[in-house]
Amino acid sequence: MQDLTQEKCVACNREAPKVTQAELDKLLPQIPDWKLIERDNIQRLERVFSFPDFITALEFTIRIGALAEEEGHHPALLTEWGRVTLTWWTHKIKGLHRNDLIMAARSDQAFEKSSSQAAD
Amino acid sequence: MQDLTQEKCVACNREAPKVTQAELDKLLPQIPDWKLIERDNIQRLERVFSFPDFITALEFTIRIGALAEEEGHHPALLTEWGRVTLTWWTHKIKGLHRNDLIMAARSDQAFEKSSSQAAD
Repeated sequence: MQDLTQEKCVACNREAPKVTQAELDKLLPQIPDWKLIERDNIQRLERVFSFPDFITALEFTIRIGALAEEEGHHPALLTEWGRVTLTWWTHKIKGLHRNDLIMAARSDQAFEKSSSQAAD
Repeated sequence: MQDLTQEKCVACNREAPKVTQAELDKLLPQIPDWKLIERDNIQRLERVFSFPDFITALEFTIRIGALAEEEGHHPALLTEWGRVTLTWWTHKIKGLHRNDLIMAARSDQAFEKSSSQAAD
């Protein structure tokens, strides 16, 4: 199976295909901590990440922001004391593109990295 | 009239007083861009700040995060492409403390500063 963390986002326009249910069934097990939600009739991926305080939550937001800029694909990041709620979807297609699953997987990877650094 | 931007946050505990309606009537004109909202039965101050892209929105989030750390008083910051939705309230008293009005005024000041730097 393809490893989502090894994929790069592709350029996306209004005609780009949404992920199919078959793809979701195949790929969601790679990102088990993410919830598939629908808000304003738009399907999105959302995960709450926990941190010991405000500043480490903000550092994670900054890290994800850098990743988003690199890939030219931007999420919503709600930063609060002790947690970040991260939401991925694709504005242009008003739904989920494979890019969003890739970014979710890479966000998990960034979180694991920051957690292991904090434990060092 | 006292200028909110010149005030510092005071340490706050569960017994700290919420702002009164009289105080709100007096102080809200100093922060006219803020909406008084109620969410989960908690009164909050909220403002949406607009930016030309994701990275300047994120830079504002970082700036407000630094201000929050300085004062030991932390908001919710929703960072998206082109905007930051900033919400202030006081967790401990489940409502608005004068500290929140001070932080709203100082957030406005930080925004004006970042806008004038961008225009330089």
